[in-house]
Amino acid sequence: MERCPEEEHPNKAFGWASRNFSGFLSPFNFSRRDTGDEDVAFKVLFCGVCHSDLHCVKNEWGNSKFPLVPGHEIAGEVTEVGNKVTKFKVGDKVGLGCLVGACRTCDSCINNLENYCPKAIFTYNSVYGDGTKTYGGFSDFMVVNEHYVVRMPDNLPLDMSAPLLCAGITVYSPMKYFGLTEPGMHIGVVGLGGLGHVAVKFAKAFGLKVSVISTTPDKEKQAIEHLGADAFIFSYSPEQMQAAYGTMDGIINTASEGHAILPLIALLKNHGKMVMVGEPNKPLAFTVFPLPVDVIGTSLHTGRKTISGSCIGGMKETQEMIDFAGKHNITADIELISMDYVNIAMDRLAKGDVRFRFVIDIGNTLRK
Amino acid sequence: MERCPEEEHPNKAFGWASRNFSGFLSPFNFSRRDTGDEDVAFKVLFCGVCHSDLHCVKNEWGNSKFPLVPGHEIAGEVTEVGNKVTKFKVGDKVGLGCLVGACRTCDSCINNLENYCPKAIFTYNSVYGDGTKTYGGFSDFMVVNEHYVVRMPDNLPLDMSAPLLCAGITVYSPMKYFGLTEPGMHIGVVGLGGLGHVAVKFAKAFGLKVSVISTTPDKEKQAIEHLGADAFIFSYSPEQMQAAYGTMDGIINTASEGHAILPLIALLKNHGKMVMVGEPNKPLAFTVFPLPVDVIGTSLHTGRKTISGSCIGGMKETQEMIDFAGKHNITADIELISMDYVNIAMDRLAKGDVRFRFVIDIGNTLRK
Repeated sequence: MERCPEEEHPNKAFGWASRNFSGFLSPFNFSRRDTGDEDVAFKVLFCGVCHSDLHCVKNEWGNSKFPLVPGHEIAGEVTEVGNKVTKFKVGDKVGLGCLVGACRTCDSCINNLENYCPKAIFTYNSVYGDGTKTYGGFSDFMVVNEHYVVRMPDNLPLDMSAPLLCAGITVYSPMKYFGLTEPGMHIGVVGLGGLGHVAVKFAKAFGLKVSVISTTPDKEKQAIEHLGADAFIFSYSPEQMQAAYGTMDGIINTASEGHAILPLIALLKNHGKMVMVGEPNKPLAFTVFPLPVDVIGTSLHTGRKTISGSCIGGMKETQEMIDFAGKHNITADIELISMDYVNIAMDRLAKGDVRFRFVIDIGNTLRK
Repeated sequence: MERCPEEEHPNKAFGWASRNFSGFLSPFNFSRRDTGDEDVAFKVLFCGVCHSDLHCVKNEWGNSKFPLVPGHEIAGEVTEVGNKVTKFKVGDKVGLGCLVGACRTCDSCINNLENYCPKAIFTYNSVYGDGTKTYGGFSDFMVVNEHYVVRMPDNLPLDMSAPLLCAGITVYSPMKYFGLTEPGMHIGVVGLGGLGHVAVKFAKAFGLKVSVISTTPDKEKQAIEHLGADAFIFSYSPEQMQAAYGTMDGIINTASEGHAILPLIALLKNHGKMVMVGEPNKPLAFTVFPLPVDVIGTSLHTGRKTISGSCIGGMKETQEMIDFAGKHNITADIELISMDYVNIAMDRLAKGDVRFRFVIDIGNTLRK
């Protein structure tokens, strides 16, 4: 039988949890383990609100185990370190993303790709080896093996850099892996939300030409004037889309809803790569060889193009990403909210009404 | 006004053409140009029957211009060479695939990827710069710029090597480009037809482990005993499929009909690549992140997997492929037919009733 969340570990913890598929979040008492030899304990100061949190609190992926404390864009300050911890000391500013465990022995782990380890343990809604559940960053403190903790750059505000721990690495990793970081390349960013807006910033830092592709024409000004994108394409305009056919080396597709992907494939140059980093919950359809017969270059087949997926990043790369962000002064554009605003924030997020990421001021507003 | 096919060029030519979407082929008089300075003229001895021929003679891609003389797996003997021809002389055994022209100046052409040139001219159903139509290899002779002609290896029978000029390069090129040629890698070949059976042979020559994935269980014996595949997976058996999940570095997908691709993606290891080389005329659907929530590794997203297209190959690589075939004694398994059997052969091809490629003995059986 499962033990009561308050009693399974020695240390009382407090956060906000969803109890059922309504997704409504409310105060929740639970517990966390003692700080082990390789563990870092830290007080949560800020936690971003990711679209995945919204999916999970409502069980939209069908695998939520309630009560569920979401949050995997967590920044805070170290309060205790285990005997064998070498990388951190009390008082350090640290970050935690989506991962709190992995097997450390498989091919993926050995290659610093813990995110693709079949035994990866996620920051919430996952199960540790001892059978206890993981609870996320909408809570007062975390206890995590130091391997999964990153050092936050001194020059970045913690609230604005917390979202990089998921949104940032999710777009940075595929740009690196798929070779989309050569200065002068032209990249498309589909969707200008939490992921998309940081994708624009990383791409500009790499020296790329960036076109934002969006279904929301009123984001044009933000994309160009505020985020520094080079061009904006309204994806429902056939003229604007066709004018850009065959011009992009790659596309970071952050769309989290079902959408037409053939016109996006047509935007790619020959041998171009589209990377899906959003998690649309509907099947996407494509034709390898669209009919009536394609002209050379617009299709997967006639342009030797690629559609790939990519899922966050490994710990080594996450530290590299946040260091790169520090060097280039990249942060997320956030709306800082209090803990008790979270249910309204979730509703607004579902409607796309956020510029561009909600971050909860846990340190100052989470109260029993 | 279009000129009569018999009169637009000075040299009378003869072949078999389809006149309408019935796809029925019958004798056809037309003409070919004089042998230009850079041209090679050759007598057609053998011509393979590709699934694309079947699509085109019936206008299944919506772009057929009738009368249409198909055939782009052509082997023959040089009868005349232009003044500036350097690579060939009269009597040479030569081959011609899908391409007879390209711009020679674009990025693709400069990188020996004429197959991705937006101005590529195909061996039939295409239009030359002077407005005249191209006619394929179901005909008595060809006149082609030497750049698009390949030298056939002395040790390979011309009839059995003709199909390599399309089927061979179509599977060889993506194996090379997508890095699927490292000895010891495990590759899946979907579909055991004209393309699939040569894919198995090339993969074995590269030293790969090969699993054939087919909807036809009675191909198991051929796959393993005859072609040397290491394993056979009946794709309608969930047990056989699931047993192979996560085991393949790459998949060469030759299926020319609509099919489920999610189970195929699941066969790939993390970071694995599926290359679509068939031309299914129906949209394929996939979920980036299948629900209920995927376990790490089975989806595009959670395994950083890739779906790509690939379309034949450039001229340099086509010569490389045929030289490799010569070195490793790779040929197609063919059923040699006479010209007047071609309509029956087309019907049988539509039903998948061929082991594995029809080749027409043009030299001995094409008669006015």
